[in-house]
Amino acid sequence: MTLVVHRTVAEFRRACDAVRATGASLGLVPTMGALHAGHLALIDAARERGTTVAVTIFVNPTQFGPNEDYSRYPRALERDVELCRERRVAHVFAPLEREMYPEGERTRVRVSDLTEGLCGPKRPGHFEGVATIVTKLFAVAGPCTAFFGRKDYQQLKVVERLARDLLLPVEVVGRPTVRDADGLALSSRNAYLSVAERERASALPRALSVAVRAFERGERRAGALRQPVEQALTEAGLRVDYVELAGADALEKIADDEAVQDRAVLAVAAFAENTRLIDNVVLGEDPPPLPEIAP
Amino acid sequence: MTLVVHRTVAEFRRACDAVRATGASLGLVPTMGALHAGHLALIDAARERGTTVAVTIFVNPTQFGPNEDYSRYPRALERDVELCRERRVAHVFAPLEREMYPEGERTRVRVSDLTEGLCGPKRPGHFEGVATIVTKLFAVAGPCTAFFGRKDYQQLKVVERLARDLLLPVEVVGRPTVRDADGLALSSRNAYLSVAERERASALPRALSVAVRAFERGERRAGALRQPVEQALTEAGLRVDYVELAGADALEKIADDEAVQDRAVLAVAAFAENTRLIDNVVLGEDPPPLPEIAP
Repeated sequence: MTLVVHRTVAEFRRACDAVRATGASLGLVPTMGALHAGHLALIDAARERGTTVAVTIFVNPTQFGPNEDYSRYPRALERDVELCRERRVAHVFAPLEREMYPEGERTRVRVSDLTEGLCGPKRPGHFEGVATIVTKLFAVAGPCTAFFGRKDYQQLKVVERLARDLLLPVEVVGRPTVRDADGLALSSRNAYLSVAERERASALPRALSVAVRAFERGERRAGALRQPVEQALTEAGLRVDYVELAGADALEKIADDEAVQDRAVLAVAAFAENTRLIDNVVLGEDPPPLPEIAP
Repeated sequence: MTLVVHRTVAEFRRACDAVRATGASLGLVPTMGALHAGHLALIDAARERGTTVAVTIFVNPTQFGPNEDYSRYPRALERDVELCRERRVAHVFAPLEREMYPEGERTRVRVSDLTEGLCGPKRPGHFEGVATIVTKLFAVAGPCTAFFGRKDYQQLKVVERLARDLLLPVEVVGRPTVRDADGLALSSRNAYLSVAERERASALPRALSVAVRAFERGERRAGALRQPVEQALTEAGLRVDYVELAGADALEKIADDEAVQDRAVLAVAAFAENTRLIDNVVLGEDPPPLPEIAP
């Protein structure tokens, strides 16, 4: 199978139609490129499901705030295509901005409630940009199974919601976060980290692991689960953006004086200098990001 | 050909897929039911284009304001289905609300700029409701040609814009307004009018016809085209909601002290007692709604 790179909506749409016309099912892996092992695990998951895999690579301008890293976000199309080829991806869609945002475009997709906590207030407009581009990618790809990483947990919930709400013929599959040896969640943004920052960043999975173990020992008080995470990140020299507990489905905030009743996600965002890192665990469901170290 | 009525998204999606699988193209006519000759002209246009015709009938709650006529909007499904059958419609999609707005739904589609003038400020949330339901109907129907009346001119522009912007595989076709003998644009809401109100309502096409003739005689001053319309409606005992001149594509407002340069739409909304009526002409393009009466 030879990989084909498409630069226009019309070409990619035809390619996706052609996949289905053979009776195969389409597996879609939407990315912003700078592929790492997390993305490759999504590709593997799509292939293992028996789908013909299409990877989209598009650094979506509308999901970046004015003071965020759109211009310096890593771009490595040739290398990405090579990685896709090795993984037996059939189609790569790497459109120009004008293809995804046609002249005079004025349309946005918004998912409310789910975007009110966690990263929502910290990144105004971010999820509207995500919801809009994902709707467009789904519209171009047509009926498919789409794979997203659980590292961007809130994004996954937004995408699940919009696919259901807009009645799109897309099954959304969330896949586990892929981590480095020290537990740090893989992210294209890790490339920004200096050696010292990278060292400090490992406090994120360590702190989340402590919380998972406390939960496993029976701790249900939200404050007792949340506050030590915030403290550990600060002590490690990270600037906490938020540490929040929320319902795992509707993402409603769980306050410190409440108890965790149902499935809950513990989500964090913290800066190592100028690099914003996020991570999360679903308590009672995800293993600790970092295996317990023998004393 | 026998007409099939579908009540669920899954059934209607399968039916649309099956139409395309035979090599036929799908013609979609989205309506809120209470079909009149305007809707039937859309069906005819779809059939004359050689498409297999599907009519959707759904009174969309999200496009009505809290003080509008959602609850009393005319509903006549059996009669509508009969009319569709006579016109050789293949599929009617008449979903329950829960199908179109699934439990917990939170997603809305918004088209900006185009919705800032004309009906936009008068009906807050209306076009968001329209854009959302049309996106859903397009998502369910899949690749098709969709037919809309030009009576709802701003709606047509919004739908054209969202189909392009969201990269939906849908060609949007706008069709001329169908009118009664006295020029009144057909609308399901005309059923609300008393005999006296119906009489007064005919001032709308009369006033627009005067403006079209002035334009044809070379009048380009926006105020000189617009103000007599407002005056004529008021004198006829209608309560003017707005009379506006706007660019025919981007719908940017043309002020009274400006001149009409390019294609412009003259759009009106007026109340006959509690019934809100709208109408419009594209100057230099549409004929006068009412043929000139011999003196």
